[in-house]
Amino acid sequence: MKKKIVLAYSGGLDTSYCIKYLTAEAGYEVHALTVDTGGFADDEIQEMEARALSLGAASYRREDVTESYYRECLRYLVYGNCLRYQTYPMSVSAERMFQAMSVARYAVAIDADGVAHGSTGAGNDQVRFDLAFELSGKTLEIITPIRDMQLSRQQEVDYLAQHGLVWPEKKGKYSINAGLWGTSVGGTETLTSHQNLPESAWPVPVTATGPREIDLHFAAGEFTGFDDQKFSSPVAAIKALEALAAPYGIGRDIHVGDTIIGIKGRVGFAAAAAMLIIKSHHLLEKHTLGKWQLFWKEQLANWYGMMLHEGQFLDPVMRDVEAFLESSQGTVNGTVHVTLHPHRFVLNGITSPNDLLGAGFGAYGEANEGWSGDDVRGFTKILSVPGRIRNSVNQQP
Amino acid sequence: MKKKIVLAYSGGLDTSYCIKYLTAEAGYEVHALTVDTGGFADDEIQEMEARALSLGAASYRREDVTESYYRECLRYLVYGNCLRYQTYPMSVSAERMFQAMSVARYAVAIDADGVAHGSTGAGNDQVRFDLAFELSGKTLEIITPIRDMQLSRQQEVDYLAQHGLVWPEKKGKYSINAGLWGTSVGGTETLTSHQNLPESAWPVPVTATGPREIDLHFAAGEFTGFDDQKFSSPVAAIKALEALAAPYGIGRDIHVGDTIIGIKGRVGFAAAAAMLIIKSHHLLEKHTLGKWQLFWKEQLANWYGMMLHEGQFLDPVMRDVEAFLESSQGTVNGTVHVTLHPHRFVLNGITSPNDLLGAGFGAYGEANEGWSGDDVRGFTKILSVPGRIRNSVNQQP
Amino acid sequence: MKKKIVLAYSGGLDTSYCIKYLTAEAGYEVHALTVDTGGFADDEIQEMEARALSLGAASYRREDVTESYYRECLRYLVYGNCLRYQTYPMSVSAERMFQAMSVARYAVAIDADGVAHGSTGAGNDQVRFDLAFELSGKTLEIITPIRDMQLSRQQEVDYLAQHGLVWPEKKGKYSINAGLWGTSVGGTETLTSHQNLPESAWPVPVTATGPREIDLHFAAGEFTGFDDQKFSSPVAAIKALEALAAPYGIGRDIHVGDTIIGIKGRVGFAAAAAMLIIKSHHLLEKHTLGKWQLFWKEQLANWYGMMLHEGQFLDPVMRDVEAFLESSQGTVNGTVHVTLHPHRFVLNGITSPNDLLGAGFGAYGEANEGWSGDDVRGFTKILSVPGRIRNSVNQQP
Amino acid sequence: MKKKIVLAYSGGLDTSYCIKYLTAEAGYEVHALTVDTGGFADDEIQEMEARALSLGAASYRREDVTESYYRECLRYLVYGNCLRYQTYPMSVSAERMFQAMSVARYAVAIDADGVAHGSTGAGNDQVRFDLAFELSGKTLEIITPIRDMQLSRQQEVDYLAQHGLVWPEKKGKYSINAGLWGTSVGGTETLTSHQNLPESAWPVPVTATGPREIDLHFAAGEFTGFDDQKFSSPVAAIKALEALAAPYGIGRDIHVGDTIIGIKGRVGFAAAAAMLIIKSHHLLEKHTLGKWQLFWKEQLANWYGMMLHEGQFLDPVMRDVEAFLESSQGTVNGTVHVTLHPHRFVLNGITSPNDLLGAGFGAYGEANEGWSGDDVRGFTKILSVPGRIRNSVNQQP
Repeated sequence: MKKKIVLAYSGGLDTSYCIKYLTAEAGYEVHALTVDTGGFADDEIQEMEARALSLGAASYRREDVTESYYRECLRYLVYGNCLRYQTYPMSVSAERMFQAMSVARYAVAIDADGVAHGSTGAGNDQVRFDLAFELSGKTLEIITPIRDMQLSRQQEVDYLAQHGLVWPEKKGKYSINAGLWGTSVGGTETLTSHQNLPESAWPVPVTATGPREIDLHFAAGEFTGFDDQKFSSPVAAIKALEALAAPYGIGRDIHVGDTIIGIKGRVGFAAAAAMLIIKSHHLLEKHTLGKWQLFWKEQLANWYGMMLHEGQFLDPVMRDVEAFLESSQGTVNGTVHVTLHPHRFVLNGITSPNDLLGAGFGAYGEANEGWSGDDVRGFTKILSVPGRIRNSVNQQP
Repeated sequence: MKKKIVLAYSGGLDTSYCIKYLTAEAGYEVHALTVDTGGFADDEIQEMEARALSLGAASYRREDVTESYYRECLRYLVYGNCLRYQTYPMSVSAERMFQAMSVARYAVAIDADGVAHGSTGAGNDQVRFDLAFELSGKTLEIITPIRDMQLSRQQEVDYLAQHGLVWPEKKGKYSINAGLWGTSVGGTETLTSHQNLPESAWPVPVTATGPREIDLHFAAGEFTGFDDQKFSSPVAAIKALEALAAPYGIGRDIHVGDTIIGIKGRVGFAAAAAMLIIKSHHLLEKHTLGKWQLFWKEQLANWYGMMLHEGQFLDPVMRDVEAFLESSQGTVNGTVHVTLHPHRFVLNGITSPNDLLGAGFGAYGEANEGWSGDDVRGFTKILSVPGRIRNSVNQQP
Repeated sequence: MKKKIVLAYSGGLDTSYCIKYLTAEAGYEVHALTVDTGGFADDEIQEMEARALSLGAASYRREDVTESYYRECLRYLVYGNCLRYQTYPMSVSAERMFQAMSVARYAVAIDADGVAHGSTGAGNDQVRFDLAFELSGKTLEIITPIRDMQLSRQQEVDYLAQHGLVWPEKKGKYSINAGLWGTSVGGTETLTSHQNLPESAWPVPVTATGPREIDLHFAAGEFTGFDDQKFSSPVAAIKALEALAAPYGIGRDIHVGDTIIGIKGRVGFAAAAAMLIIKSHHLLEKHTLGKWQLFWKEQLANWYGMMLHEGQFLDPVMRDVEAFLESSQGTVNGTVHVTLHPHRFVLNGITSPNDLLGAGFGAYGEANEGWSGDDVRGFTKILSVPGRIRNSVNQQP
Repeated sequence: MKKKIVLAYSGGLDTSYCIKYLTAEAGYEVHALTVDTGGFADDEIQEMEARALSLGAASYRREDVTESYYRECLRYLVYGNCLRYQTYPMSVSAERMFQAMSVARYAVAIDADGVAHGSTGAGNDQVRFDLAFELSGKTLEIITPIRDMQLSRQQEVDYLAQHGLVWPEKKGKYSINAGLWGTSVGGTETLTSHQNLPESAWPVPVTATGPREIDLHFAAGEFTGFDDQKFSSPVAAIKALEALAAPYGIGRDIHVGDTIIGIKGRVGFAAAAAMLIIKSHHLLEKHTLGKWQLFWKEQLANWYGMMLHEGQFLDPVMRDVEAFLESSQGTVNGTVHVTLHPHRFVLNGITSPNDLLGAGFGAYGEANEGWSGDDVRGFTKILSVPGRIRNSVNQQP
């Protein structure tokens, strides 16, 4: 009897190769699962289903986890203003982990013997998949043909051609990965250290012109929508914001970072909605949170993002950090006023019922109420005590 | 016999008022000292000297501390990629502290009885001055007429007019503060939470058009120059970069933050050179430093910037952080390739002899050398051990 | 009409002086409030009430906040294993803040015009009181006769004698402060840097002999009791443990630290229950929490303790840290086996349903299950990648 | 031609087995190297040499790295008051890394083809050895018979007996590992969670009685000696202190922690000198360093210890942390007064030219000079500003 396995199916060349290879050569019963985190259109899914089945998959299934992905993860990336190395919103990092966990759960649910993924041996995704599979609660065989055989793209195309599937010429030479929180773009230039991606590499061309005012709304730290539009959920609001802002070419950049396996990696990304939301949220927090909340949030969120990036979403410390972050968001309410321009945006300011600035305690640098010059004199006198003692004891300055 | 005091003289309305008031009404012998941290032209200084003496100062002196300010402080802000709340290069914060320390040293040197500054009671500068004065090593009277009398601008203008000095209409309604590391802009809109500064408020208008390629060079973490130009010192290189980049309107933003006295403050700034250097330096570090160096540098530099911002430059922990930062910079060598556009810049990539990316160990996501798929399999197997134990003990998931 | 004020009344010389002085000389209507955080016996309270009224207080009230003090604060000190500078359980720090907040609430409740405390100008308590009073939500006059007049003990005794109250010779020369979480002891030797307190200075003499086995029980991080005894609440269990363990002389030490006002301070303390509970809890956590939970708990709890020590309990970051700490405690269940000896205790081990040690995954250093030698080989191969790249690029070692 | 390998030879059963097995069965030319970090007496070394050669080693060598181990590593553990999970001085962790690095260097120096160690597959040491070998700068085969064959102790004894070496009955049933910084003890009880080691398991019995006063001296953070004795180096002073203090049974405890491979581990240790030095050094720092130095030292040293424990001594961040720690030690000078008792010690106090306590600025809680009550009043007024604003904006409390 054939071993039953679940394959994390993205519809791309690597995982399509896997279906054919694992059914035809390795003798597995392959159940293809596409876990949707906001990156697939319905017609793409139909196409993927047809391809999977034609390549020999015993079944095909799409699971849409976008809402739980948002609620259990993205939400905290917003609370934490998480940008890896101050740059990358970790679009793919977060998604891949949720896809891997869904595959693991499905494998357990259908009592599969193993799980397969199409990752190479040089990236982060292999670790995310392996880790999630190891922690499924069941001992699952982990099958990774691309990594194990170190196949080239051409070898895969040739193999599929031999089996009757002519793989279409790619539109371009870039590897693209789209999800709710952004799209990553890798290839040619990102394999160097010195070259930027050409305009043509980006998934959405810059077609917007002229400035556009936009108001982003937040309630208890969550992005709820923009302008006067109503949205059924933050997920819907994020998608609408992305559709609006992507043609401005906002949120494009290149991330250079440390991979889980220790090499440096470089990848482009376009994440208009993510960057607008994070930067707006951060500004709103500067007005509504205390200094030490901002201090610790930054450290903890930095760690949270790193752990998530490295496939450690299931570490229990992540739940504790989430509790901290959630606790901090009660006063993060209000609207952030932004202007979009081609290739950039400007945060003009905020309006918030919890704004701590200009709260009748005098304006910064102008006038003071609530304390006197003598109070500040006393304040600095006391602040200087440790230094005066040091000077006295250590004969300095 | 008159008490001898040193006044920190910026040439502005507040400190000009102080000269007249402290000599004419309060009976002090006032020695005006302008500490230059890269923000004054020679003709401005001449004008300030004439004004100070005409208002009654017993002496006038300019001290140029730009080089030591760079060497003892700015350099570390670059090593640390320091931006307060990820935004503000702390242009004024750093300068003011160095000005205050210079005034204190001068007061001790000429055996003054006291020191005076023109700060109001609502900002950060009063604390920086007071702290530096308290830590001079000598007990100095601290005289602060503007803070103590809570004078309005109009009261000061009227008083000076009564004494024969017609204060010129300000060019605009904004309070401007220029130094080597940037220019701050405060007034009208920055006193609200929701308004951005108008184009006219910025010190340098945007006149540059079209893209401009530029290469920034770094040696052991220090910015040494750009393109093929040679500079006598990093200070000279920074000034030249500022002159080149300011007309692009780069590095303009609004900082919202916590003041030392506990209120929130909001101030605009234009810091083209500072932002270009910091962002370029950070990118170079991502290629040349280890993951944990980047992690700890960020935390320590964040703290360093906060302490500096809050007038605590003399705290001994600052020397220890500097030692850490300096130790980390040995491999931060190379060139960062940047494109300037009006209102923005793009970091295209880097070239470095210490680049850890693509070092013959395989390219990220493409191919791997130096390890095998089985190595990664073992790696993730071990990484999963704590989670598997947790699942087993606590019956999850 | 007299101004109505609430005095934080401890029954000691300073606050007794305050009642007489503030009623007789300063013309206030003084309402004495003793806030009990577990440090007063009923007969002490009766004595204090009689003294307060005889000195002229308009009313006397005792408020027992021990339960809320435990629930809102001490509990988190246990979760966080909080010891200031790895030594001091912050017995007095925590109490004083809760006393100050209760006084402030009472002053608001009875619509008082002001609040008074008996702190000197050289310690931490004045700041804790002042801060809590400033944050009462009402503008209250803060009256501090001892601080303002810099009175000596003798001056106070003489003044009270003139008004008919002969202050009893103190039992000893030490200032003692008792509460649920420990007793502080200051005087003579603690005013030096080099002397330890003599045996006679400690509040409870060492009378226990021989070893005593004891089992401490924890549920979700809370200390619930010991051995087979049942307790109505953690507070009752703490009191019973203190009664049992104090005669062993356990938990005595001297804290040297930084005061809020910047001088160094030194104070003895005896805190048998607190030290036993914290050290036992910490050991239990080492068995039941993950590595990164332990890492971040330590940093956050260190901060939490410092802020509490410095009167910043009301800072909103404290609520966020509490959320983190609480989230982490779900698996901190079990029993810690301890042996008490005179002057010391030994943690023998733990028993826990959530023990992650020896969970069928092989014993440390002996045998391994759940992974192979080749897995570890792969693990370390990958762990070495960054170092091998560094060596290759930077030509080291 | 035989492959030439270097074996890290400790003289124990595992590595003795390795010599015989690797020469007789596997056909290697085995060069045995014992790296001494302060744990071997000369006669032990002679015995080890004889055994190694008789078992078939091609050569035997002892390398004494104690001084460099102290200078490059232990010194920083003192500066950092490093105790893993507040308990374990990481005696073995540090040594093993230095032994591994020495073996790697020797293998490169004699142009060996490989390196071998005798670690099992369940502990930390295998990772430390593997990592150091991978980072030798040369590609070396790593040979680990015990780990690969998962041999039991009995299998090894039998094998050696077949080859003519009767392995002596161990003195006891505990695995003992001695070095300059302490001795670890593992076996029977440490494999459980709830049992303590019996008295007989500890390497040095408690023979001292009665109290003993001792003065420990520090210069720029380094332990230089005690009482009136002169020492040629800190290493000599540490050894003398260990000899004096070990018979008091001081510094015995059980470490429970996270191993590098993710399981929890438990091990006893006796480290009299290490604990005395670290606790004394920490106390001296509380008197001589600033609050923020203490704060950051703790975080960084905690990390430093963890990384060292996990074999990451060669990570570049370690050099940066060392720079920080070294920078902080300039004022850590003076003498710590300690009393030794059987099973415990008491820190009585310190004497230091850099003592910041009682420096003429008033005594804690008693009297204040250098500031007034009004200064503190102003200080707390300003400290309360953020809270008052929060109350006002958010309508609390």
